[in-house]
Amino acid sequence: MDNSHECCRHVKDVSLKDLRDRLAEFAKVRGWEQYHSPRNLLLALVGEVGELSEIFQWKGEVARGLPNWSPDDKEHLEEELSDVLLYLVQLADVCELDLGKAALTKIVKNAKKYPVLN
Amino acid sequence: MDNSHECCRHVKDVSLKDLRDRLAEFAKVRGWEQYHSPRNLLLALVGEVGELSEIFQWKGEVARGLPNWSPDDKEHLEEELSDVLLYLVQLADVCELDLGKAALTKIVKNAKKYPVLN
Amino acid sequence: MDNSHECCRHVKDVSLKDLRDRLAEFAKVRGWEQYHSPRNLLLALVGEVGELSEIFQWKGEVARGLPNWSPDDKEHLEEELSDVLLYLVQLADVCELDLGKAALTKIVKNAKKYPVLN
Amino acid sequence: MDNSHECCRHVKDVSLKDLRDRLAEFAKVRGWEQYHSPRNLLLALVGEVGELSEIFQWKGEVARGLPNWSPDDKEHLEEELSDVLLYLVQLADVCELDLGKAALTKIVKNAKKYPVLN
Repeated sequence: MDNSHECCRHVKDVSLKDLRDRLAEFAKVRGWEQYHSPRNLLLALVGEVGELSEIFQWKGEVARGLPNWSPDDKEHLEEELSDVLLYLVQLADVCELDLGKAALTKIVKNAKKYPVLN
Repeated sequence: MDNSHECCRHVKDVSLKDLRDRLAEFAKVRGWEQYHSPRNLLLALVGEVGELSEIFQWKGEVARGLPNWSPDDKEHLEEELSDVLLYLVQLADVCELDLGKAALTKIVKNAKKYPVLN
Repeated sequence: MDNSHECCRHVKDVSLKDLRDRLAEFAKVRGWEQYHSPRNLLLALVGEVGELSEIFQWKGEVARGLPNWSPDDKEHLEEELSDVLLYLVQLADVCELDLGKAALTKIVKNAKKYPVLN
Repeated sequence: MDNSHECCRHVKDVSLKDLRDRLAEFAKVRGWEQYHSPRNLLLALVGEVGELSEIFQWKGEVARGLPNWSPDDKEHLEEELSDVLLYLVQLADVCELDLGKAALTKIVKNAKKYPVLN
């Protein structure tokens, strides 16, 4: 087996630290750091969650895989999901917290809280 | 230079696909897939955004880096940020969308929308 | 027809100004006005919308009238709906805006935007 | 004293039942009742809370009374506050719950939970 491919597979995945670094640079070169206080970013996140909800609001129940959604609708949804993620990553960053590590820790905690029943 | 370290550095980053796969397995072994419709997960996400907001609600403006927050307060915040992320990853997954790819695409789109002024 | 009954019927309705005044007094006598900045109240509102969403999150589609909900579930829902309303009324109040008047104005505006088709 | 004026003063206040009845009629004559399931209205409410948050997101702390806000900004805020209220009233209505009564009950409950300290 070629380990370099194994490596590449991982490297190609989008990591939370990669997003964090790109977004920090994005804000820095535009002079936007001054606006990125924790509560400003939190309210921006809430705003994006609202836009995400608007996509689903009049649809009634939606099946997994979004059957019958148009490519445009799916692209719109991808954009709103992304906006929520991008503000979440930035919020964690300005709070100087490691979101990826925290997420793994939470999964472990949840696994203990909800043991698999056999 | 030792490439294996370079590799490890990347591998250690938490990727969105890794989270997606762990969460899908987590739900599957617990028989929870039946509850994970897009709108159920969206409302669960909104619930966690609410808990995230509750942490900040009576604090007035909060400075970057969270000076004067106790380790317990920071840990609580890490948990709520994680809960939002975990539901977001699962929502994208049941919609069969690639969240990491979508996020990178959105950053590129934003870069064009907001060019750096010199 | 007895006009006094007509009057009473209206007076017994809960008005937004009555809620506003009760809540302003509630906060004042407890020394809570110092915490009631617009953004604090907004985040508290978001927190309550989160709790409201949690009630509905794993239920799949819910029919009008909430058939099969227990009295306890309905009471819980009434409390969360109320919490959202109470923070909304307080948010409008500290912004020194007339929420009831604004709501009527918005209904008129919506009626023009969405004319009834015959 | 002219009681009819006392009566009028109350009647002029906007009551929750008045809003409920106007909104029910508004939806009925437009054939929108079919879309007004509880979870659809809840997601519409979340969408409006997002729009409300967007108004405040880049402002940093905002003082009571919104000093320095333009009349247009205030009007925009009134509209978003109203949109949240209108969906909240409709959500309670399709759940067949009395929002005004529930709000008064919650204030009484809160008063017991947080007694005034002397």
